[in-house]
Amino acid sequence: MIEYRNLRVALLGAGSVGSQTARLLLEHADELASRVGAKLELAGIAVRNTSAKRDVELPAELYTTDAEALITSSDIVIELMGGIEPAKSYIIQALTSGADVITANKALLAEHGDELFEIADQVGAQLYYEASVAAAIPILRPLRESLAGDRINRVMGIVNGSTNYILDRMDRFGDSAEDAAAVALELGFLEADPTLDVEGYDAAQKVTILASLAFHTSVPVASVHREGIASVTLEQVRAAREAGYVIKLLAIAERLADPDTGVESISARVYPALISRQHPLATVHEGKNAVFVEAEAAGSLMFYGAGAGGVETASAVLGDLVSAARRHVAGGPGVAQKAHASLPIVPVGSIETRYQFTLEVADEPGVLATVATVLASHRVSVETVIQTASTDTEASGTATLVIGTHTAREASLSATVTELANLGVVTAVKSVLRIEGI
Amino acid sequence: MIEYRNLRVALLGAGSVGSQTARLLLEHADELASRVGAKLELAGIAVRNTSAKRDVELPAELYTTDAEALITSSDIVIELMGGIEPAKSYIIQALTSGADVITANKALLAEHGDELFEIADQVGAQLYYEASVAAAIPILRPLRESLAGDRINRVMGIVNGSTNYILDRMDRFGDSAEDAAAVALELGFLEADPTLDVEGYDAAQKVTILASLAFHTSVPVASVHREGIASVTLEQVRAAREAGYVIKLLAIAERLADPDTGVESISARVYPALISRQHPLATVHEGKNAVFVEAEAAGSLMFYGAGAGGVETASAVLGDLVSAARRHVAGGPGVAQKAHASLPIVPVGSIETRYQFTLEVADEPGVLATVATVLASHRVSVETVIQTASTDTEASGTATLVIGTHTAREASLSATVTELANLGVVTAVKSVLRIEGI
Ligand SMILES: NC(=O)c1ccc[n+]([C@@H]2O[C@H](COP(=O)([O-])OP(=O)(O)OC[C@H]3O[C@@H](n4cnc5c(N)ncnc54)[C@H](OP(=O)(O)O)[C@@H]3O)[C@@H](O)[C@H]2O)c1
Ligand SMILES: NC(=O)c1ccc[n+]([C@@H]2O[C@H](COP(=O)([O-])OP(=O)(O)OC[C@H]3O[C@@H](n4cnc5c(N)ncnc54)[C@H](OP(=O)(O)O)[C@@H]3O)[C@@H](O)[C@H]2O)c1
Repeated sequence: MIEYRNLRVALLGAGSVGSQTARLLLEHADELASRVGAKLELAGIAVRNTSAKRDVELPAELYTTDAEALITSSDIVIELMGGIEPAKSYIIQALTSGADVITANKALLAEHGDELFEIADQVGAQLYYEASVAAAIPILRPLRESLAGDRINRVMGIVNGSTNYILDRMDRFGDSAEDAAAVALELGFLEADPTLDVEGYDAAQKVTILASLAFHTSVPVASVHREGIASVTLEQVRAAREAGYVIKLLAIAERLADPDTGVESISARVYPALISRQHPLATVHEGKNAVFVEAEAAGSLMFYGAGAGGVETASAVLGDLVSAARRHVAGGPGVAQKAHASLPIVPVGSIETRYQFTLEVADEPGVLATVATVLASHRVSVETVIQTASTDTEASGTATLVIGTHTAREASLSATVTELANLGVVTAVKSVLRIEGI
Repeated sequence: MIEYRNLRVALLGAGSVGSQTARLLLEHADELASRVGAKLELAGIAVRNTSAKRDVELPAELYTTDAEALITSSDIVIELMGGIEPAKSYIIQALTSGADVITANKALLAEHGDELFEIADQVGAQLYYEASVAAAIPILRPLRESLAGDRINRVMGIVNGSTNYILDRMDRFGDSAEDAAAVALELGFLEADPTLDVEGYDAAQKVTILASLAFHTSVPVASVHREGIASVTLEQVRAAREAGYVIKLLAIAERLADPDTGVESISARVYPALISRQHPLATVHEGKNAVFVEAEAAGSLMFYGAGAGGVETASAVLGDLVSAARRHVAGGPGVAQKAHASLPIVPVGSIETRYQFTLEVADEPGVLATVATVLASHRVSVETVIQTASTDTEASGTATLVIGTHTAREASLSATVTELANLGVVTAVKSVLRIEGI
């Protein structure tokens, strides 16, 4: 049945993802061959240390430190080393030597994706990267292919498992941020250096990739507005729960249209926000990921699953491998990654959103009127107000005002908050959170 | 930028889906051309009545009753007429005249898919059908491509919006089955003849398509075990809610392995079952659809969205159209649809599942022991038992036993129920439901 010559597959890296990819490639060799119509031969695995002890046992003769020799003698190269260099040089070498490349390297794609896609395009090779966003969840292929005839208006996702784990523990078990982070670290949901996750860098890299695909526009990671979860307190999480919300770190890529001119632009941003407990994203617990997509014709779609993990990520890598290998066998188009639309990217101040802010105010007549006047002067309209006398003994004589706004420009909302903070009657701005989802 | 010749697209049918497909095709012409690298020209729309008044206004000169002339002069044919004939003959004509075909016709695919894929394969044409299952939700492409390197073990979906709407109203608003169906009918969630939906035929057609793809095996619709929702009562729905479950009509395709020999087989079935309210499928409300997939490496994935609607379904049709058109422009593999594995399909008696049954029993000593002995004799092990004195005045002197079992063979479970029903101390078997999901 198999007529095509064997395809040589080079693997760069044998860490969490690489070792599982190699294992599955060897264990499922027959099934993969029948999917592809050719045998996939694991030609070698480039690592730094060929004699390191590894969790997954693989044939010792596969390991090599000579990545370049492996790359130039392979049909398909899978890059699972991570980091910018030498990953970038290796990928360029693979593409220019005519190999198709598969990578899970979101950091590299977010920084240098345009350059790499350009090179791939020039030489007629393909660069596959499904595993780079939300690991096992098929999200890039559906965006690129299934929704290719639709217009995507919004992509909103929980794309970082570590921060979702922390926020979910705070919400469901009442852990403090520190306790939740300690558990996340212990269970391997958080890296020893948590900065990339907690500060939202990882999510920003992913939203760069999602926005570029969804809007056919090159979105530099520097253009992504980024806020992490470091400032989210247990008090905010509790108050959100009481009000029927949950706080999630959201990565949002959105198409905007000027109401007067119709001119389109896009926004890409990452921040913790309130979403209703009725929203499908609210049920994404622990380290899971989910991406919510709104398209003009398809309406709302959600894609849910494991957003990390060696074997889970390897599933997405192998899906790309089968696509790449089928292309070798049958020839054909592969992945078109052209930034046709090239929409402008707007700063966060230009987006429209809703706010919820919690103020500690003097418990005296006229305070609400003063606050309301400030809101009105910025054309921010109020949806809900809840005023409660403070139970805090240190803050006796004060009351708490929780104000939920209607949709307004982010710039107006943030100016409103600044002005409110300077009012004499406002003793403290205790919390400011955006509200996302309907 | 566009170098390739225009591609001629024939549309068969201008009903709910067809008219929206035509509209989007015309309105998004420029964007589609830039996705594809060629202009897509709507060559004509075949209907029965060219002068019918239609909701969506389209250029009158596009309508024709001469479907055959349209088909044989087109590069890509989109079949959105529905029904078996003449849809089947038209699709065969299109394929044999070298056109690629896109269809949303689940009834036709479930009955004659094998024959159509065989013909497509022989002539080297492609048959795309993403819209046939769960409308707007990209599910077939992810199964076929993204998970091509993984092993799918289970696909469990809510794939019929009408029945989900009815069950959801019963659960959330306490409507009786009749009232819920009346609302569904009024709001267009249910057809005038509800049999296809309510009796599970529509879901059975879809599980046929899902199982064939997931397991690379031809699954005749006649081999699908099918139970509809006609027998589900409000009382059952209420009791389920109290116990932390919700009743959903589930379409399940599952890979089974003989514990002794390891020989694999598959089961495809449709029935109303209890799932935990913690399960992601439990939050699928109204007419929405969702498909839950369990794969060896990827773990659990869920795909959620609109499972019906003209414009939503048109989104999936256009996604297929872009794939088909790209293939024309660049040449290439398209969709491989080969039943390589051809696993045997087992009857429902061979599957393993859990049961919850509710018995009305005589309120006297020793009854529980009698019941437990019957269970043990069938090797069915009990997970939970709740006994309550009956509050029903007609049934005074009786008690209600709600028994949840551990996993056991379906055949043993159903034999157990039959034997229990014949026990003197059991006055009535009030409810028997399977429990799915963990
Ligand atoms: N882990 C996840 O859950 C996950 C999820 C999605 C995406 N990703 C992405 O997948 C990629 C791999 O992640 P990972 O977690 O598998 O990484 P990892 O466990 O740190 O493994 C990295 C591997 O690359 C090898 N390597 C590093 N530098 C090298 C060099 N200069 N030359 C040769 N080999 C080199 C290492 O070799 P030695 O073993 O000899 O040191 C190691 O085997 C990253 O881009 C990551 O962002 C990971
Ligand atoms: N509606 C949904 O939400 C949905 C979702 C998923 C899949 N689907 C599938 O999509 C397909 C189309 O569904 P639909 O709801 O759009 O159907 P529909 O509203 O009943 O429209 C059928 C169209 O086909 C035309 N037609 C029927 N028989 C014909 C014949 N012999 N020759 C020429 N034209 C003929 C009709 O022409 P006239 O207008 O002149 O009568 C009509 O325009 C079906 O296979 C359905 O199962 C539908």
